[in-house]
Amino acid sequence: MPELRLNLITKEWVIIATERAKRPEDFITTVERKVLPPYVETCPFCSGNEAKTPDEVFRLEHDNQWLIRIVPNKFSALSRTGQRERINDGLKHNVSGVGVHDVLIETPMHNLTTAFLPTGQIENIIGAYRRRFMDIYNDPRIEHVIIFKNHGEGAGTSLQHPHSQIIGTPLTAFHIRDRLEQAMRFFDTTGQCLMCKTIEDEKTDGIRVILETEHFITFIPYAALSAFHIWIFPKRHFAAFSDITGQEIADLAGNLKTTLSKLYYGLDNPDFNYVIRSNSPEDSGSEYFHWYISIVPRVSKTAGFELGSGMYINTALPEQSAEFLRNVTPPVA
Amino acid sequence: MPELRLNLITKEWVIIATERAKRPEDFITTVERKVLPPYVETCPFCSGNEAKTPDEVFRLEHDNQWLIRIVPNKFSALSRTGQRERINDGLKHNVSGVGVHDVLIETPMHNLTTAFLPTGQIENIIGAYRRRFMDIYNDPRIEHVIIFKNHGEGAGTSLQHPHSQIIGTPLTAFHIRDRLEQAMRFFDTTGQCLMCKTIEDEKTDGIRVILETEHFITFIPYAALSAFHIWIFPKRHFAAFSDITGQEIADLAGNLKTTLSKLYYGLDNPDFNYVIRSNSPEDSGSEYFHWYISIVPRVSKTAGFELGSGMYINTALPEQSAEFLRNVTPPVA
Repeated sequence: MPELRLNLITKEWVIIATERAKRPEDFITTVERKVLPPYVETCPFCSGNEAKTPDEVFRLEHDNQWLIRIVPNKFSALSRTGQRERINDGLKHNVSGVGVHDVLIETPMHNLTTAFLPTGQIENIIGAYRRRFMDIYNDPRIEHVIIFKNHGEGAGTSLQHPHSQIIGTPLTAFHIRDRLEQAMRFFDTTGQCLMCKTIEDEKTDGIRVILETEHFITFIPYAALSAFHIWIFPKRHFAAFSDITGQEIADLAGNLKTTLSKLYYGLDNPDFNYVIRSNSPEDSGSEYFHWYISIVPRVSKTAGFELGSGMYINTALPEQSAEFLRNVTPPVA
Repeated sequence: MPELRLNLITKEWVIIATERAKRPEDFITTVERKVLPPYVETCPFCSGNEAKTPDEVFRLEHDNQWLIRIVPNKFSALSRTGQRERINDGLKHNVSGVGVHDVLIETPMHNLTTAFLPTGQIENIIGAYRRRFMDIYNDPRIEHVIIFKNHGEGAGTSLQHPHSQIIGTPLTAFHIRDRLEQAMRFFDTTGQCLMCKTIEDEKTDGIRVILETEHFITFIPYAALSAFHIWIFPKRHFAAFSDITGQEIADLAGNLKTTLSKLYYGLDNPDFNYVIRSNSPEDSGSEYFHWYISIVPRVSKTAGFELGSGMYINTALPEQSAEFLRNVTPPVA
């Protein structure tokens, strides 16, 4: 018998389609991957091609070689200049598209995906995320900052060189407010942070946990919205990613490397997105919200049902997916 | 300057990315389509292969040849038998996966997509949707019924034979309730149906209208969530699809054929999903909800930004997309 599970954090119902369930092995990607060279002449993100990008807003370097660059996106979805203006004309509500759209180049090397980066470099990346996150929030036109990564064409990127994106928007989506409201109601009802309670329960159950490090826990949610949907939660309660400590960054770097390596080796380098869900630094004191990272491998497709019903069909059993990834041991780099 | 537009009906913000905007021609699909034969021996939906499907729950026939069959989905996401049971165990909320998952085979011919079907056959399909929609709602275990079509692999189907799906779920998603609540608040504030007001405004503006027939209007929403996102609204106010009259079915059949033909010829047979958004027959009297059809061509991809921000980026200007489709004249069948 299939079952419907409620994802309390996203407030979405998921049909866990036991009758159609596939084995974890069935999700191994069949996309053929070319072996990438370390340098590509036409790649705007490769070392040596810096002139192909807009002027950088951040650089981390070592021995005259940059390690990380943050540059404005050449094909920005939003305009960095101009005023935030709003027109409400009957049903037409419109805000001028000012904002920030940055690209973080994760390494000078074209062919190093996160699974292959040294942990120290992932630490640098998270540190750079944090710094830029806080900078962008200083712009009074910006209401919300989102840090995310698209890996692979199926995840919406055509650029192979490892990169993430940081977008600051001039407003907050209702969708984000809805989740906050949901967490707030839970807190008001129970006196507990919904995410802290989730961590407690996942640790007790154990069966959906993939990995636990000193400061972070990685698991497949009870009501995972899609196959191999993964959450990484900080164990300490804090609402804004910007409050992460140096020790926590180092721990997260190791955790993220292992998690993404397990995906890389377990599912043969699937396309994926990840996103950091966080409060703004000014709402960092919230007792009811708790930031986290959501990873969504693109190993299954949504269709008309999801579009129409607002529910999801997951053909991978969360407990089985977690067991599978727990047992993947990436080779020691 | 890009702009952000609010879709009041879905309550979602969309970045209309004017700086990255593509011309309508740039969305023409590049997927290579094989010419399909009218019959495929291994296809479970072809005429003559009826034994390959579960027993039908509905058949429309003419001169001993069926025109439409509705059969249970062989790979059903939900179980037709069993009781609806709910377990609330701490944070784990679970409902047994009972429900209905039907496939409507739209024609005996393997190679006839909606753009090529006679209008009379599309009328038959809509009539069959209506009948099955009401039947499924009679099952006391079912709370919500969704009718949808996935066309093409990019839209989530691997079966080429023209078909739609009808799913009855044992609960209503929060997502659906949120839209209803939004429409209700609008009604309570303004005394108007949000969709009636939208039709009025779209007719006045005119620039986003693709097609208007006697009983239906087809347009690109002001804040279209993706490229060539299309809505078809009945002009008469009614909340449940099941209240559609015979005359309205005939008119909708013609409208849908023209709309999908414009997509077919204008964008070279893109993958798409469509879905009917409707109240249940028992809530058919609602003054604040108004059913409609949403068509989403899969000509652009969502990525980490959409996942994280709850907003959309649309690189097609709704007014330009509408003008493009208005000017596509499908050949007379």
